[in-house]
Amino acid sequence: MTRTLSALLAPSSLALVGASDDATRIGGRPLRYLREAGFAGRIYPVNPKRDSVQGLPAYADIAALPEVPDTAILALPASATLSAVQACADRGVPTATIFSAGFAEMGEEGRALQSRILATAREAGLRLLGPNCLGVFNPAAQYYGTFSVILDGQLMQPGPVGVVSQSGAYGSHLAHLARKRGLGISKWVTTGNEADIDLSEALSWLVEDPQTRVIMAYAEGVQDRDRFIAALEGARQAGKPVVFMKTGRSSVGAEAAASHTAALAGSDAVFDAVLRQYGAYRAATTAEQIDVAYACARSIDSAGGLPSGNRIGIFTMSGGFGIQLADDSEAAGLDVSPMPEPAQAELLKALPFAAPRNPVDATAQAVTDMGLLTQSVRAMLEQGGYDIFTAILGTGPGSPTFSAKLRAALQAAQPEQGSKILRALTMSAPDDAVRAYEDDGFLVYEDGSALANALGALVQFSSAFGRPATDPATLSMDQQDLPQGPVSEAGAKRLLARAGIPFPPEHLVTDAAGAAQAARDLGGPVVIKIASPDIAHKTEVGGVAVNIPADQAEARAARMLADIAQAAPKARIEGLLVAPMAPEGVETIIGVSRDPVLGPVVMFGLGGVFVEVLRDVTFRAAPFDRAEAHRMIRDIRGYPMLEGVRGAGRADVEALAQLLSDLSRFAFAHRDQVAGIDLNPVRVLPEGQGVLALDALIDFGKDPA
Amino acid sequence: MTRTLSALLAPSSLALVGASDDATRIGGRPLRYLREAGFAGRIYPVNPKRDSVQGLPAYADIAALPEVPDTAILALPASATLSAVQACADRGVPTATIFSAGFAEMGEEGRALQSRILATAREAGLRLLGPNCLGVFNPAAQYYGTFSVILDGQLMQPGPVGVVSQSGAYGSHLAHLARKRGLGISKWVTTGNEADIDLSEALSWLVEDPQTRVIMAYAEGVQDRDRFIAALEGARQAGKPVVFMKTGRSSVGAEAAASHTAALAGSDAVFDAVLRQYGAYRAATTAEQIDVAYACARSIDSAGGLPSGNRIGIFTMSGGFGIQLADDSEAAGLDVSPMPEPAQAELLKALPFAAPRNPVDATAQAVTDMGLLTQSVRAMLEQGGYDIFTAILGTGPGSPTFSAKLRAALQAAQPEQGSKILRALTMSAPDDAVRAYEDDGFLVYEDGSALANALGALVQFSSAFGRPATDPATLSMDQQDLPQGPVSEAGAKRLLARAGIPFPPEHLVTDAAGAAQAARDLGGPVVIKIASPDIAHKTEVGGVAVNIPADQAEARAARMLADIAQAAPKARIEGLLVAPMAPEGVETIIGVSRDPVLGPVVMFGLGGVFVEVLRDVTFRAAPFDRAEAHRMIRDIRGYPMLEGVRGAGRADVEALAQLLSDLSRFAFAHRDQVAGIDLNPVRVLPEGQGVLALDALIDFGKDPA
Repeated sequence: MTRTLSALLAPSSLALVGASDDATRIGGRPLRYLREAGFAGRIYPVNPKRDSVQGLPAYADIAALPEVPDTAILALPASATLSAVQACADRGVPTATIFSAGFAEMGEEGRALQSRILATAREAGLRLLGPNCLGVFNPAAQYYGTFSVILDGQLMQPGPVGVVSQSGAYGSHLAHLARKRGLGISKWVTTGNEADIDLSEALSWLVEDPQTRVIMAYAEGVQDRDRFIAALEGARQAGKPVVFMKTGRSSVGAEAAASHTAALAGSDAVFDAVLRQYGAYRAATTAEQIDVAYACARSIDSAGGLPSGNRIGIFTMSGGFGIQLADDSEAAGLDVSPMPEPAQAELLKALPFAAPRNPVDATAQAVTDMGLLTQSVRAMLEQGGYDIFTAILGTGPGSPTFSAKLRAALQAAQPEQGSKILRALTMSAPDDAVRAYEDDGFLVYEDGSALANALGALVQFSSAFGRPATDPATLSMDQQDLPQGPVSEAGAKRLLARAGIPFPPEHLVTDAAGAAQAARDLGGPVVIKIASPDIAHKTEVGGVAVNIPADQAEARAARMLADIAQAAPKARIEGLLVAPMAPEGVETIIGVSRDPVLGPVVMFGLGGVFVEVLRDVTFRAAPFDRAEAHRMIRDIRGYPMLEGVRGAGRADVEALAQLLSDLSRFAFAHRDQVAGIDLNPVRVLPEGQGVLALDALIDFGKDPA
Repeated sequence: MTRTLSALLAPSSLALVGASDDATRIGGRPLRYLREAGFAGRIYPVNPKRDSVQGLPAYADIAALPEVPDTAILALPASATLSAVQACADRGVPTATIFSAGFAEMGEEGRALQSRILATAREAGLRLLGPNCLGVFNPAAQYYGTFSVILDGQLMQPGPVGVVSQSGAYGSHLAHLARKRGLGISKWVTTGNEADIDLSEALSWLVEDPQTRVIMAYAEGVQDRDRFIAALEGARQAGKPVVFMKTGRSSVGAEAAASHTAALAGSDAVFDAVLRQYGAYRAATTAEQIDVAYACARSIDSAGGLPSGNRIGIFTMSGGFGIQLADDSEAAGLDVSPMPEPAQAELLKALPFAAPRNPVDATAQAVTDMGLLTQSVRAMLEQGGYDIFTAILGTGPGSPTFSAKLRAALQAAQPEQGSKILRALTMSAPDDAVRAYEDDGFLVYEDGSALANALGALVQFSSAFGRPATDPATLSMDQQDLPQGPVSEAGAKRLLARAGIPFPPEHLVTDAAGAAQAARDLGGPVVIKIASPDIAHKTEVGGVAVNIPADQAEARAARMLADIAQAAPKARIEGLLVAPMAPEGVETIIGVSRDPVLGPVVMFGLGGVFVEVLRDVTFRAAPFDRAEAHRMIRDIRGYPMLEGVRGAGRADVEALAQLLSDLSRFAFAHRDQVAGIDLNPVRVLPEGQGVLALDALIDFGKDPA
């Protein structure tokens, strides 16, 4: 741990400034929790009005403390915070947490106050958590630097789950739900307004923390692209699942998020793409977040690791539940593959009325004769070839007349030592029964749909963690000298062609005679387009003519120049672009836009109704490699169009992936200059024949810096 | 209640055949539960080997009973069941339940045995439940005719929720979850193999039952279309929500379902459509089924009814949770509309740091000063104009230091007597706290996403219940005399035109000269198509020519006849169809297929990639009216194409709806003869100009009877 980390998350001494004798108040709760937990470090309550607080001697101010504490917790009104931070800075305190609200989230005045506090801290090398946060806790160190009310009456168990949350209330709720689920917490960090320490930094702490095996995160937006991506990629490379709740996906939610936090919420679709791209899992609901984190924690911590594949075997004693879990498993991307034929035959010998395929339904017979249950389950574990085994036990484990027999029968079917099969159960039973089956190595869920979904998430993590790290060299690109201000289509194509984007061969000519000569050189019918840096939408002014035979090129070019002279008399005309008619292919639309937080992002979709009606597009943060581009291409619903429909062959998806990756590298290398790029359409030719961008537009926008 | 119903669900006397002295066995459990419940009726254990069973005098057989019992519960092996049914029939017992498996679900032999049992019962007017079922219970009557283990240790509370389930295990699980959620059960019926009484009949009982206000159903398939639809429509008209779990939606699941039950599982998409069409709600997960049923039960039973609109006001003391619930509400189709401006201004006066819009975020200030909470909530209830109010309380109601104040503050903000605003909360707290808030009139959820989703379901029910019943007259259609065997396109069009389906004016001619004359009469370019009952796919044999100028029609027609003579020498040729080129419009595909259980269903989708790549289609069971057709049209993702994209105007959706309804009525009137209809394409012209079916194919298939 760095000095900041250990000082903030595992201090050996702390000052509680604004300490209260009332253990239900914000200034009183941390003290009460620390003492209930048996915190072994030195605690210095600071309160100029009292000699003692909750039985501990109190100090008038930071300066009066007998030593420099590792951390200071400021439980003070906003107005008193600046001078307390100054006192910490003066004394050389390395870290401080500010609980109070009333800063950047409250408009101009609050923002100014927060800036002054940050400047004061920065000058002295004092690291700040908050303001407007609920602090931290670290159960293994008995450390509770928080006033969260969920600790009222019950502290936390240490365990493998780390929590980072911008919202203190949400972070508290996650910790509460984890506790109810029997999950221990490694570190819990709430970042509030993030004047200094932000979510990404806290996330990277947990990636480094050996006690943390799984991370639950909550954000409304992030402050810094590079830190955020580095933290996510660090987690992926360390094999630590990040289960993310990102709010603000609805229009109302995004509005409320913007009014609530000082963070700039990146556009939701882009944020979503970044999470997927860097191997994190975005939960849709809090229940899902806990369900997935539970699966991660139990499989990594005690059940032999994430599953290595997606083949699931389902055991049931009631057909209906088996069918339901098969439905849910398929929806979660799992492979409900049948038992091998010999194993089916063997099962049928023992259980003639069973369904031996998968789900394996041993019927109520197995309830009466538990040996049959053991035999069936053992056959599935030993002969099924499954990565995941799931049994449906219903209310059985809670039944006084049935529970002990059932558990013994399952124990008798334990897999061999070293088996990598992940085992899970569904049941509805009291907590002690659940814990008993967990001790036997099972993941336990009440709801089969929640289980199947969480297993699907494990498989996604497993696959994301198995991807090699991208070589940064493949993502970089030499910067070109870019012009200042707008460029014509021809200019944009020249720049992008140098970056590897393929365009049709085309001639820039200055007059109608040149167009005729170019058409003859190209052979066959041509496209003629006006070339002007001042005309972005060429069709609107009559600046595009397609399928012109070579012998009509001169006349058509002359007419176009005359039309444009009328329609856009002030536009600077570079000339005319003459290109061959492009071969047939699948039309796609590719673009780059710049997210205020997450930087340049590449969008991909199919042309026509796919984008215009169905909004069937996908995003990736630039830069990315070809492998990521292939995943991107497969995201869209219309992907089968590229595989070939109505007897058409497969399109050149490999060339498309190369283009997307090249474009992403260009966009990232020039992120300070380029605000947007449109390649519309990009035609994907049949396999082996490449892609062609038929039009290009670069927007140099305003400098974001 | 009918005699069957009261005899089966509220008997005053019963025989337990195969009664066991061991209270943990199948033949022992019902007796134990009945006695624990204090059942007041007369119980006759039947067991030829014993004088008494669990302390009650036992009888050797049904014949020996001192009276004819209302119902007999047969807890016997499959092999002993037939003679017991015969004994019941001989004695005139009106109803019996068969627990045992080993019948139709177990292949040929079991099916034969089940048929014999049914025949025996039918002859005597004996109604059967099962076999392979878990029976029934009726907590208000202290009646438990079941061996379900979930009653081990805890019986059920009476209440508003009815349960019907083909699977005994699933039905038990639902009852168990309802009990955990504090929901009482009115009637609980499991139907198993459904030799006689099926899910639809049981469903219609609960629709009639005054104690049942909400129904949870589970099915793998249904036996009879008419009974099923009548039960659903009955529930809709009675204002009783049906919350349905239908399994078998995946390929594996459907296969397992077919192997598991004797029911023919209708195709899942069609089943889904029928549920929507008749106002039931299909839950995706069991957790959702309970969450939605809870919302229905609490709102109908104690909170003033279903909400009358979808405007939701959200109160929070923590921004993050508010944003999340706003996201979830929007996703569930709720309207998170802002507070009126004057109310916002008023709120800001009291709480200058609050976000007063919606979600209303009173911030942690309201935690410190509960009067502010009361004031904010009252403002939302009185001035917000909301149909639904939701407050986010987190772990507060479980906190020893906070709980009482919080509840009092909310009570102080009660809406006026007679208010129709549905009120809900999210909180994570022990059961007694939850029950207390329920007593205050709130729906209580732990998870905000689950709450938002359930509220969305309530709004759907409210809207479905508000639809007037369809006048049967608008759904009927006079039957035409249909030909036996295949008809040509021209023949199909003649039949369908009589049913109101619009086709372009077209001429059937017998030779090339006739085609030329027809083209001259029509004016402008024409389409020429071969007319033959033996050629279903005309393009494959050169039987379609489009855009033929009138002066070339004769030559082209002659060539077509020559081509066909070569390509399909044996086909009977009726002649040639000559039609004008149809005006531009939106291409759609409309078809009818016959589901083995649910009968004729109409499919609708847009042409091209929408159907071929995106499978963007929707179904309705025939017949349906124009209003339903409008809902159907709006189901598809590509619907905006009909509203007009790329500057195109709106298409004639009204005419399209009329066509769909007419086709559905034709398909239903001729359901015994017509196996399939293809109208591909159907061109939807601009608004006011109608639709045109450009091709038609009728498949007379085999008679399903």
